Amino acid sequence: MAPDPVALDPVTLDRAVVVGTGLIGTSVAMALTGRGVVTYLVDADPEVAKLAADLGAGIAGEPVEPVDLAVLAVPPAHVARVLAEQQRRGLAAAFTDVASVKARPQRELEALGCSPATFVGGHPLAGRERSGPGAARADLFEGRPWVLTPSPGTTAATLERARRLATLCGAVPVLMEADGHDHAVALVSHAPHLVASLMAARLVDAEDEAVRLAGQGIRDVTRIAASDPRLWTDILGANAAAVADVLEALGADLNATVAALRQVAEVPDGAVRGIGGVVDVLERGNAGHARIPGKHGAPPARYTVVPVVIPDRPGALAALFADAGEAGVNIEDVAIEHSPGQPVGLVELSVQPAAAGRMVSELRRRGWTVHG
Amino acid sequence: MAPDPVALDPVTLDRAVVVGTGLIGTSVAMALTGRGVVTYLVDADPEVAKLAADLGAGIAGEPVEPVDLAVLAVPPAHVARVLAEQQRRGLAAAFTDVASVKARPQRELEALGCSPATFVGGHPLAGRERSGPGAARADLFEGRPWVLTPSPGTTAATLERARRLATLCGAVPVLMEADGHDHAVALVSHAPHLVASLMAARLVDAEDEAVRLAGQGIRDVTRIAASDPRLWTDILGANAAAVADVLEALGADLNATVAALRQVAEVPDGAVRGIGGVVDVLERGNAGHARIPGKHGAPPARYTVVPVVIPDRPGALAALFADAGEAGVNIEDVAIEHSPGQPVGLVELSVQPAAAGRMVSELRRRGWTVHG
Repeated sequence: MAPDPVALDPVTLDRAVVVGTGLIGTSVAMALTGRGVVTYLVDADPEVAKLAADLGAGIAGEPVEPVDLAVLAVPPAHVARVLAEQQRRGLAAAFTDVASVKARPQRELEALGCSPATFVGGHPLAGRERSGPGAARADLFEGRPWVLTPSPGTTAATLERARRLATLCGAVPVLMEADGHDHAVALVSHAPHLVASLMAARLVDAEDEAVRLAGQGIRDVTRIAASDPRLWTDILGANAAAVADVLEALGADLNATVAALRQVAEVPDGAVRGIGGVVDVLERGNAGHARIPGKHGAPPARYTVVPVVIPDRPGALAALFADAGEAGVNIEDVAIEHSPGQPVGLVELSVQPAAAGRMVSELRRRGWTVHG
Repeated sequence: MAPDPVALDPVTLDRAVVVGTGLIGTSVAMALTGRGVVTYLVDADPEVAKLAADLGAGIAGEPVEPVDLAVLAVPPAHVARVLAEQQRRGLAAAFTDVASVKARPQRELEALGCSPATFVGGHPLAGRERSGPGAARADLFEGRPWVLTPSPGTTAATLERARRLATLCGAVPVLMEADGHDHAVALVSHAPHLVASLMAARLVDAEDEAVRLAGQGIRDVTRIAASDPRLWTDILGANAAAVADVLEALGADLNATVAALRQVAEVPDGAVRGIGGVVDVLERGNAGHARIPGKHGAPPARYTVVPVVIPDRPGALAALFADAGEAGVNIEDVAIEHSPGQPVGLVELSVQPAAAGRMVSELRRRGWTVHG
């Protein structure tokens, strides 16, 4: 009997197909295409797949032969059905998905009789407020965790292909159990979403004069409350018990905080004990916040910033960029800071770290005031 | 009898003193100095006042004669004491403060026998995550509400001086009762702060593998939980009852949400009713969030963005800025968008709206691809 060709080279990832070319699917496809993987693009709406192709994400349409990996970038509720269908059609040697809940799709696909050998659940922890292929970015997953949740039946070759996928996208593969993943995202994603909604809901019946005092604090706390309720109902419904556990614990803490505030406000001599309760929640908030890794989750800055003092008048930027251009250094990004009415501003040029020294010395030689 | 000189010209605001040169006090002083008001800078730490003066905020030290207005930019708990002392010393013809709670300082200063005629409470709704005079900005209050809470004893001249102060700082004066102000900020500032702390506190005992999955959503929800607990204990303690009211209402909503999630997870045939509860809180969150005015509280955009396609190589920006400079249009801000590895990027030039048409046509004439 001839050996299984997959077993001969289990980590081949030369050809892939992305099913569902929204924000996540198209970003995956852009990253794969950029790394030389021949990537096909399939969507329920062929026009959407064509737009993704026009943006350089890959080739619109189905592969004529089975490819190495199919990435199912469809909503959580559709993962099992699409997997069953595409396994039956033999679309790929291995399959993974990108849904933000993992245990329920896993149960559903087992119930549908999908093959566990060629499937591993996946969840890249990345996104943007915008959606659709037009918002896709090849670097969306750069430095972000990409959770993989192999079942006992998943083969090593399947897992390895999904791991290659995550790495090719610049993400950090993280192996977890499906249940462990779902409890983790209940804490760091799903419960915060409802907390934002609960806070924002307080504004529905508020006086206009109160709402107009809103500043950056409540804007940040409630930003994600602006998300699509349908999408989030699906996500929260698929992870309901774990989310309820987090909110229930938060509710107990909230009740204690209300009691502490009431002591401060109402109970004679209760102020000191009440204040202790307020300090406690603020300090635990400090401690919890400090555990969140990395500022804004951005990958470490790849560029060095060269700050240059510049007069606030026409032609000044042109002169600066002309001089910077003659230094032969590519400018990766630019920011301008100036306090209104001040006669000077600060231009921050982002350059490759290795080129920063040259940029600084060349600009200084040409008479610019360069800091740092 | 000679007429009261204040009554002759009640809105004089030629000379001012700022007591407390932290972020808010120094920003006020910078704005006043920038508008031609002679501004003195006083701080419990004379070195801090001197730093503010070096940054161009005004003159370090006390005025030798009474000035038109004293701005007490000290912590809420110190407002009444400092006001009593400075009224006794005759520091200024009128006094205001910048504390973020208004009813309690008002009661305290009445108890200390301060004159109500020459004082009006004030609260500019502005701030930064950084503190101290080094973080001050003349435009910190630009377009922001500045609440004034006159008491029945406040004279029209005092109120008018405080209103001029707010206007000179670029803020929008808003008259409110002290209690109304405190209920409003309990809703839009103080309760959101505790909600952020309560969410962040859930992370204290979380597994490392869960915390590492944190993304931008929970970062935003919990950002203000990183603030100084001492400062916030003072603020929350001074407004405890109003904050407790908001949190209690939120808690009732939270309990209903937990019950809905439990129905989805546990009750046979309860899923549909439970899902209705989840949809309800998400939709009310949408509606409440939509009431928050203006994106990020920024004043309406003053510039028009001109997007130009640009090759990602050295010299390209220089050529673009040279051509833009020859168009004689001042570039107010620049942003560059490009997906890594793509051969082209998008440069967004911010210009005065009246000049945008000229910029677009001049750049196109010189061969640039300009959108919009």
